[in-house]
Amino acid sequence: MQEKQHVIHSHVQNTIHHSASPNGLQEALSYAVSAGGKRLRPILMLSTFEAFSDDIKKALTPAVALELIHTYSLIHDDLPAMDNDDMRRGKPTIHKKFDESTAILVGDGLLTLAFQLITESSELGAEEKIYIIHQLSKASGINGMIAGQFLDLRAEGEPLSEEKLNYIHQKKTGELIRAAIKIGSYLGGATPPQIEALNDYGHYLGLVFQIQDDILDIQGDETELGKPIGSDVDQNKTTYPSLLGMDQAIHLRNHYMALAEEKYEKAGINQDILKDFINLFGKRTY
Amino acid sequence: MQEKQHVIHSHVQNTIHHSASPNGLQEALSYAVSAGGKRLRPILMLSTFEAFSDDIKKALTPAVALELIHTYSLIHDDLPAMDNDDMRRGKPTIHKKFDESTAILVGDGLLTLAFQLITESSELGAEEKIYIIHQLSKASGINGMIAGQFLDLRAEGEPLSEEKLNYIHQKKTGELIRAAIKIGSYLGGATPPQIEALNDYGHYLGLVFQIQDDILDIQGDETELGKPIGSDVDQNKTTYPSLLGMDQAIHLRNHYMALAEEKYEKAGINQDILKDFINLFGKRTY
Repeated sequence: MQEKQHVIHSHVQNTIHHSASPNGLQEALSYAVSAGGKRLRPILMLSTFEAFSDDIKKALTPAVALELIHTYSLIHDDLPAMDNDDMRRGKPTIHKKFDESTAILVGDGLLTLAFQLITESSELGAEEKIYIIHQLSKASGINGMIAGQFLDLRAEGEPLSEEKLNYIHQKKTGELIRAAIKIGSYLGGATPPQIEALNDYGHYLGLVFQIQDDILDIQGDETELGKPIGSDVDQNKTTYPSLLGMDQAIHLRNHYMALAEEKYEKAGINQDILKDFINLFGKRTY
Repeated sequence: MQEKQHVIHSHVQNTIHHSASPNGLQEALSYAVSAGGKRLRPILMLSTFEAFSDDIKKALTPAVALELIHTYSLIHDDLPAMDNDDMRRGKPTIHKKFDESTAILVGDGLLTLAFQLITESSELGAEEKIYIIHQLSKASGINGMIAGQFLDLRAEGEPLSEEKLNYIHQKKTGELIRAAIKIGSYLGGATPPQIEALNDYGHYLGLVFQIQDDILDIQGDETELGKPIGSDVDQNKTTYPSLLGMDQAIHLRNHYMALAEEKYEKAGINQDILKDFINLFGKRTY
């Protein structure tokens, strides 16, 4: 896991280092990708890929692209007009460190660069590139991540049903997690039933991730998380604990963890790191 | 020209109409593409394509994608943290009509949708899709349009040389105009020397467009333009007229118009609309 994190980190850094954009913009782009982060999505992509193939070079560019899209989404979500967060991963957010216009442009730039990178890869065939760009753009688009963020913002202060809460989170975080798994398994050479089982695994994994996110916003440690806790309560957001109570939220998380493991088993592969992910997402403290 | 404008307009509208994003977001997306605008870039793409091929269906999706990218860039440029413009094409800008978070997300969404659309086209081959996505992402990315916007914002209140001014505009508007022409000629089946000549034509066309833009900000009619004039002066921006004086700016515009025509002739094609574009860009009043 840590080795993959390191590989992703250095490839993301290198990508930005070689992008040669104007001074000032380049500095902000480097800052944006240097903060670290868990790199969970690209690691998930690489891990799924490795369940089917050893030729890891093939999956590196899509993994970097995925991380750039995730990073862009955090930068825009943190903006004053959105979630208005000053800290991220223990460091000032881009609009605090630089300014708002820089944060908007850095986000736009990382999103655009993600797609450009895929087109320039020498490891991927044209059909593979199209598949990857299609999955990433759909998952992060107006029926995916952007829809989720839109609905999430609009839902502040409004009570939500569990169904609606699930829906928003599937859009906001779930689709990109599933795209990571789909792309990894497709590129590795999984069969369609395997891709489907892993897609379902990703579905529950996303819900586990989100419930734990909500739990950490109440029970987490600010230093470990690198951001303040309690922001959901401050913003009057419906969360799993606020809707169901903490005990039931933990129960639901464990239930989805079991379902994720069931779907993993259904794929009939032997890739322990994907099982570890269930615990990592469900029991993480950071 | 008007027929093409109509075709583009209805295809852009249809694309958004069928995108089925959540209520509220969908409304803002529709508003964003309904304001009209001149659709100059996609018309330029279609016109270049038609110099080489009659199979116009092939060029429609890239033309729509190009317009979505252009529209996203205007929405983000108009934001309070950027150029802070309240009116665009005679209507309130997205952040005035809705709010800032909606404007950020609509922009992000249009950009992402542009790439998704290309991947879903049934008229284009995989290699063609990759070519289009590559050209569009590069032209609108951190070494293209975003670099231009970044430098333009940073340059406010600072005197610029003509060389630097050219550089910023080539990035900010020129690269996307050239991408339109490159994609149109490539898809149509132009030879490499023809693509190169038309690329040079696009280079001068972009400069003509920008100089005229600067002239209109001083001499234009607000009703016809659909936005207030004088904003460059208010923002203390270096423009061609402020740098060279109005007479010299007009002279330079005419010089670039002549060079654009020279490059058009060099391509050895018979497509009058591309010659009309030179006059349209250079003599436009709106």
